[in-house]
Amino acid sequence: MTNVEKLYALERKVAAYSHAMGILEYDGETTAPKGTGKNRGMTLEILGEEYYKLNTSEETMALLKELNEIKDTLDEKTRRIVELRMEEMEEISKIPMDEYLAFQLLTNEAQDVWHNAKANNDYASFAPYIDKLVSMLKKFAAYVRPDLTAYNYMLNRFEKGLTTEKCDAFFGPLLETLKPIIQHVISAKPVDETLLNVHFPIADQRILSDKLMDILKMDRNHVGIGETEHPFTTSFSRYDVRITTHYYENAFASSMYSVIHEAGHGLYDGNTAEELAYTSAGSASTMAVHESQSRFYENVIGRSRAFVKIIAPEIRKLCPALRDYTDEEMYRAFNVSKPSLIRTEADELTYSMHVVIRYEIEKKLFAGEIAAKDLPEIWNRLYKEYLGVDVPSDTEGVLQDSHWSGGGFGYFPSYALGSAYAAQLFETMKKDFDVEKEIEEGNLEKINAWLREKIWKFGCMKEPGDLMKDAFGEFDPKYYTEYLKNKYMEIYK
Amino acid sequence: MTNVEKLYALERKVAAYSHAMGILEYDGETTAPKGTGKNRGMTLEILGEEYYKLNTSEETMALLKELNEIKDTLDEKTRRIVELRMEEMEEISKIPMDEYLAFQLLTNEAQDVWHNAKANNDYASFAPYIDKLVSMLKKFAAYVRPDLTAYNYMLNRFEKGLTTEKCDAFFGPLLETLKPIIQHVISAKPVDETLLNVHFPIADQRILSDKLMDILKMDRNHVGIGETEHPFTTSFSRYDVRITTHYYENAFASSMYSVIHEAGHGLYDGNTAEELAYTSAGSASTMAVHESQSRFYENVIGRSRAFVKIIAPEIRKLCPALRDYTDEEMYRAFNVSKPSLIRTEADELTYSMHVVIRYEIEKKLFAGEIAAKDLPEIWNRLYKEYLGVDVPSDTEGVLQDSHWSGGGFGYFPSYALGSAYAAQLFETMKKDFDVEKEIEEGNLEKINAWLREKIWKFGCMKEPGDLMKDAFGEFDPKYYTEYLKNKYMEIYK
Repeated sequence: MTNVEKLYALERKVAAYSHAMGILEYDGETTAPKGTGKNRGMTLEILGEEYYKLNTSEETMALLKELNEIKDTLDEKTRRIVELRMEEMEEISKIPMDEYLAFQLLTNEAQDVWHNAKANNDYASFAPYIDKLVSMLKKFAAYVRPDLTAYNYMLNRFEKGLTTEKCDAFFGPLLETLKPIIQHVISAKPVDETLLNVHFPIADQRILSDKLMDILKMDRNHVGIGETEHPFTTSFSRYDVRITTHYYENAFASSMYSVIHEAGHGLYDGNTAEELAYTSAGSASTMAVHESQSRFYENVIGRSRAFVKIIAPEIRKLCPALRDYTDEEMYRAFNVSKPSLIRTEADELTYSMHVVIRYEIEKKLFAGEIAAKDLPEIWNRLYKEYLGVDVPSDTEGVLQDSHWSGGGFGYFPSYALGSAYAAQLFETMKKDFDVEKEIEEGNLEKINAWLREKIWKFGCMKEPGDLMKDAFGEFDPKYYTEYLKNKYMEIYK
Repeated sequence: MTNVEKLYALERKVAAYSHAMGILEYDGETTAPKGTGKNRGMTLEILGEEYYKLNTSEETMALLKELNEIKDTLDEKTRRIVELRMEEMEEISKIPMDEYLAFQLLTNEAQDVWHNAKANNDYASFAPYIDKLVSMLKKFAAYVRPDLTAYNYMLNRFEKGLTTEKCDAFFGPLLETLKPIIQHVISAKPVDETLLNVHFPIADQRILSDKLMDILKMDRNHVGIGETEHPFTTSFSRYDVRITTHYYENAFASSMYSVIHEAGHGLYDGNTAEELAYTSAGSASTMAVHESQSRFYENVIGRSRAFVKIIAPEIRKLCPALRDYTDEEMYRAFNVSKPSLIRTEADELTYSMHVVIRYEIEKKLFAGEIAAKDLPEIWNRLYKEYLGVDVPSDTEGVLQDSHWSGGGFGYFPSYALGSAYAAQLFETMKKDFDVEKEIEEGNLEKINAWLREKIWKFGCMKEPGDLMKDAFGEFDPKYYTEYLKNKYMEIYK
């Protein structure tokens, strides 16, 4: 075998292990009996070890070095795979193995502790883990990227090239623009949202989900839908994508918009170029890019008047209790805005506020300006200041998200960034064709095709910055603030 | 690591790979989107290669040889694991690798061809594969067990120690006893079976399945239930067991008895001794023993008057259309007997006839007395002779089962043997306690506990012959023929 053949054999093997681990986890979230976790954990540990070895063995390192030396002679795809693998390997090789493993153990433990802490509103039990995790991650930052501040290293792990400077430039004006709009919405006449809570039997909501996936022109031969506590998307390759949702009998829009959100992720994962399949270059780009796709479908498309117009008849047909609501009433109810406590349940307008709060806390935490013990007080103060809400308990406050317990500091900004990307993509798309008209005619494939060409097909071939720049030019958060202002000032006029 | 530690590390690793491959296959049968098979096939191939290497590498062989040399110093469990692995390895090592792989490829191809042949009633396209498979298997037999006839080797693969002599001694008298009973049933007044076809919504049948699993005292924390085209049971370890069923709106008893049948498999798999978990000694014994458990629950228990008495109220509660049927009417309908074409749909009385027909054909095929081209004619003749039915097409005849396309010749006798074991177990159990009374009182755990002690907990620790002998003494098929005679002469008196 030539070195290039060896590389592709390795890529296929890595894809196979990742598929196996992915399906074990998916099964655990969807259909596995409750008592089977320990067994699954053992299997995942054994496969995970093999997976780690495959990626980091001396043999792999030697192969990559040799290929890297002749990278100018390689075709574009192979060169990119080598590049992506080298980046990852350099990161891993700079962290001492014992510290890397200690970190894995710490996150496992922290996740358990966090689960209990959240269930028992007991922040004190979780706080020491935050301090420990931050201190280990700061050490990792110094090993891997001594040229960056620790928090910039964290941001960079999820969004290459992202810095606090860029975040500040984004979040600062965003905050200033959103504050008065949110104030206006709070004082405006509330939107009637009673239709959101009518009884909609789950069996019929399942039919609605199938209908939504058809409307979004998803390839059901390669995209499945499951039911889980929290909706998510997992993809074993571009040929096997699973989205999930959670049905509530008395909150159908929650599940409906979960499906549309996850459909955005699923469309992306399922539409990377065929020739990139089963390679490191074939997966989707960063989290922010991924979230830009899900939020684009969920909010920009899914919560538009045009889209509501095509789904409203389906909703009325499936749920007799909704028969007498007009398209406009549905549109307004689906876009209701109310400052609230829980990020994952926040509406489009207030969502970024939840992200800004987390960003500010993380930044201070990594700068050493605050410690874990200070978090509840700061959290509650910022929720009051930015969203006007009182946080009644840490369970509904600082303990609500799972990210920190897994070491995922620096992840939250991607969410807001994704929303801003989505708005700018929308403006760019509108220059090419009449998006609303295509939606109203049910021609969602037109939209999919545009995104496939601009974003999806590239997988990881481009750096995320270049990917977005090629798609919509220089990033400008103004598109996002303008979009929110226009939309909400009209609804709450 | 000592050699013993190495052995257990190997066992855990093998269990992990087998778990991963099992869950991929289970997902494929249950929830995977239709177009994902190719991707799954690639992953299974890569994991399968690793699995094969783990089991047959030079390192593994050397380890086993070393352990085998000191086997008298090993504890019972470790000694048995070495023994089981040595047996398997000797078999594999005697077949030249290229022929082994060629056989894998041939069965893959044959399975595809069989699927199409069955769909198109085109036996001619499949016949050459039967000849090829038989000829390869005869070569394997000569490599591995030159001391046995080829068909005895085949029988031995599924039921150690089984021979045509033993089968003839079992099937001969069985055939003679069943013939007149079946004749009697055919000429007797038919049992009213209209209740079997009332409309029973699937959502309510799902509730009935849960109820059945509760009645059978299954541990739902470790046993899941899924829905597939054909019901089956798969177990990733004693801690993670999945049974499946297929619901038909107008044939609830079909699904109900599938659940009870698979529950028997599931109870066995989930109740091997804890200390054997994740080792080769921890899986269940042979197919015949496994089938004895599933048929015991499905027929001996599940179709008894006592059991019908406890499930009838649940059925009436869940399905208003069945409200007016008595326990006795249900008992008789669930035990209706009618000679038929399809083995998997056959009733308890006629089932073994289907098996005898396949056994006679396989025996002649491996003895070289007939070839693939002769099968439809012999098949149809025997169905007429033994069951009095005319076979209208090969799809409903010689092409109905998947076993041969996978090389599974010699497998069918296990089914009948399992039924006979079940009857003898029942007679033995009755000497220890009043089985009917315990069933009527809903105390199924009493029955489970008896089987756990006699059969389940041993896993593969005993040879199958010893296992059954220790449980019920010398095997005597008379228990089975007596059981069928008494039951059916009473129902069709």
